[in-house]
Amino acid sequence: MQISRRAISIQESPIRKLAPLAASARARGIKIFNLNIGQPDVPTPPEFLRAVCGFKDKVLEYGPSDGLPELREGMAAYFARYEIALDPGEILITNGGSEAILFAFNVVADQGDEIIIPEPFYTNYNGYAEMASLKVVPVRTRAEDGFHLPPDDVLDAAVTPRTRAILVCSPNNPTGTVLTWEELERLAAFVRRHDLFLIADEVYKEFTYDGRRHRSVLELPGIEERVIVVDSISKRFSACGARVGAVISRNREVMASVLKFGQARLCPPTLEQLGAIAAYRLDESYFDAVRAEYQRRRDVMYETLTRDPGIVLKRPRGAFYMIVKMAGVEDSDDFARWLLEEHQLGGETVLVAPAGGFYATPGAGNDEVRMAYVLEVPKLERAMEVFRAGLERYRALCHAATHAV
Amino acid sequence: MQISRRAISIQESPIRKLAPLAASARARGIKIFNLNIGQPDVPTPPEFLRAVCGFKDKVLEYGPSDGLPELREGMAAYFARYEIALDPGEILITNGGSEAILFAFNVVADQGDEIIIPEPFYTNYNGYAEMASLKVVPVRTRAEDGFHLPPDDVLDAAVTPRTRAILVCSPNNPTGTVLTWEELERLAAFVRRHDLFLIADEVYKEFTYDGRRHRSVLELPGIEERVIVVDSISKRFSACGARVGAVISRNREVMASVLKFGQARLCPPTLEQLGAIAAYRLDESYFDAVRAEYQRRRDVMYETLTRDPGIVLKRPRGAFYMIVKMAGVEDSDDFARWLLEEHQLGGETVLVAPAGGFYATPGAGNDEVRMAYVLEVPKLERAMEVFRAGLERYRALCHAATHAV
Repeated sequence: MQISRRAISIQESPIRKLAPLAASARARGIKIFNLNIGQPDVPTPPEFLRAVCGFKDKVLEYGPSDGLPELREGMAAYFARYEIALDPGEILITNGGSEAILFAFNVVADQGDEIIIPEPFYTNYNGYAEMASLKVVPVRTRAEDGFHLPPDDVLDAAVTPRTRAILVCSPNNPTGTVLTWEELERLAAFVRRHDLFLIADEVYKEFTYDGRRHRSVLELPGIEERVIVVDSISKRFSACGARVGAVISRNREVMASVLKFGQARLCPPTLEQLGAIAAYRLDESYFDAVRAEYQRRRDVMYETLTRDPGIVLKRPRGAFYMIVKMAGVEDSDDFARWLLEEHQLGGETVLVAPAGGFYATPGAGNDEVRMAYVLEVPKLERAMEVFRAGLERYRALCHAATHAV
Repeated sequence: MQISRRAISIQESPIRKLAPLAASARARGIKIFNLNIGQPDVPTPPEFLRAVCGFKDKVLEYGPSDGLPELREGMAAYFARYEIALDPGEILITNGGSEAILFAFNVVADQGDEIIIPEPFYTNYNGYAEMASLKVVPVRTRAEDGFHLPPDDVLDAAVTPRTRAILVCSPNNPTGTVLTWEELERLAAFVRRHDLFLIADEVYKEFTYDGRRHRSVLELPGIEERVIVVDSISKRFSACGARVGAVISRNREVMASVLKFGQARLCPPTLEQLGAIAAYRLDESYFDAVRAEYQRRRDVMYETLTRDPGIVLKRPRGAFYMIVKMAGVEDSDDFARWLLEEHQLGGETVLVAPAGGFYATPGAGNDEVRMAYVLEVPKLERAMEVFRAGLERYRALCHAATHAV
């Protein structure tokens, strides 16, 4: 009676594994700035909870497997604001974006099939691939290129007879990179060339800065049948705990199959869908304020970090993350641990996510950390001071250690 | 660009597939008694929604991947009422019982491995097996035996080198059968003999009648490491739309792995966990009333049906379903369809679930339907009248057709 191989090999969350060290630092009286997780601090719209509490039925019954019709209609109306025409039948509500990815994987690929994903990537894709018995084939992107897509020949070289899809995330977690329209067009040509599905995780859609508008793969002409979008309200309405996501596709066969997977798990949570319906009625000004706030934070983090000539970082254009590549750091796991165990500036330190966990290629990302700018500007300014002081000390220590050997 | 084989082969919900015919009957002015789905009509405790609306945080943040500690503690306290000692660390909260099954499958088995399940069984197990790339190996149980377990030699014959677990559901959906303590002990010996896991779906735990108490596989001595229980509040608190379930195991390695799968999907829904915390504080009298009501309904359905000598039915002891085997019905899909399209008594008809969908063995269950007693007694009495009239008419028609040939 052994547990399964996949249960052994599934990756532990690289974001959460430093939690015990952070707890013990806190116990020593150290104040920690959390730059490691993507938990926005923007208030959830009060309309959300009000709508939940408006539930008046006597029985909290099973809802439809594809989600409440009013939510699917509300989402279609929301996408129409972005000039993306969707029928409610092209949207199926899921238990968060997570389940949307799981369903998308199950629909496009059988066990042993391959999905190409540019790395670094959102680490949980590994978990869903493990559950769906798929192989993730990484394609490397680099800090020096702002983590934009590699040339076509690199993409083409990743394709095998088992390849079923390419998955992209834009605006990207963990890099903050927003794919350009030209890149989307290259992806369209790529999936046509190799007869693949294009899965796009667009849960950070609203989080684009510098006046740029997010372009969706749903806008690409001619590949409507190939496109599956993973969506979620977690970041959009700062409602991560609600677990309301969606699979979106104009391919009827895909949606009919997703519905069958959806029926197997009965329905997504009803009450939190009611909250989502209300949130989708908010007007665009809600996002304008959120976007402006995140852009200020992005600027604080970016400006501070790039003052360090040993840091490689292109200005990220979206989401609320950046991958920071640092000269003088060879093992970012050790560095992140060290920040918690050995570093403090005026009784304060920072918690960052080592980037190795975001790569499928062994050894990649060992000189990088992911930072999330989910703190208010004054706190973030202080956090960056504390971080930079730590980085300088750590470099000096490593340098001394190297020269002592 | 083809969708996957599993997306094609995953079973459509046999419970929901008659819905369009029911809709068109309703459009013709026919009143339909729904005996086809397991949606209880018992009110959700008002404490549930009140607790949800007590949420006061500004941000609906990600919760812990294993669920809110207060809910896990509340569940442990609840199980203690049944003299089952559990540590909160032996409970992980899931997106409904559905996700608990998916996690259990993933933890005990790799792609191509086998899980034995007595049939007829809850049809959605097929969907999770498809997603986890597992093979379901059915073991037949029969109406004549009250759908109790077959002899040991039949169970033993189902084991192959790929077998990883046996999954039982008690009280059972779709049969209403409650496994006896002797059967549980036989299962314990079986999993020891073949070195397997024992997965038990006990979501109907509270729904046992005739003064009998449900016995859990968690009470079996000596196989603690082999046992994984799938749990849910859907039926317990009539909160199907809440999607709050749990995986329970005393095997630490199992729980550590389940947590990794849990981290990949971040967390279960927060607001509905708050409702569940409040519901678990209700005292036992809540269940006494619910149980008494369902027992009355069970009696109405059982007594009416067994007046028909052509029906094979042992008195079911739990849940709120029964599988009804009928002489004179050779194709229960056709019968269920006919009830909607051709039958009515005083402008009323019934919707039942053809049992074929609950069997993995092709052709099995074609003379059976599943009925759920989720209507109040007066309605149920009338529904049974309408059903019995339909069955008699259908038999006469089939008889006439056969003799005409």
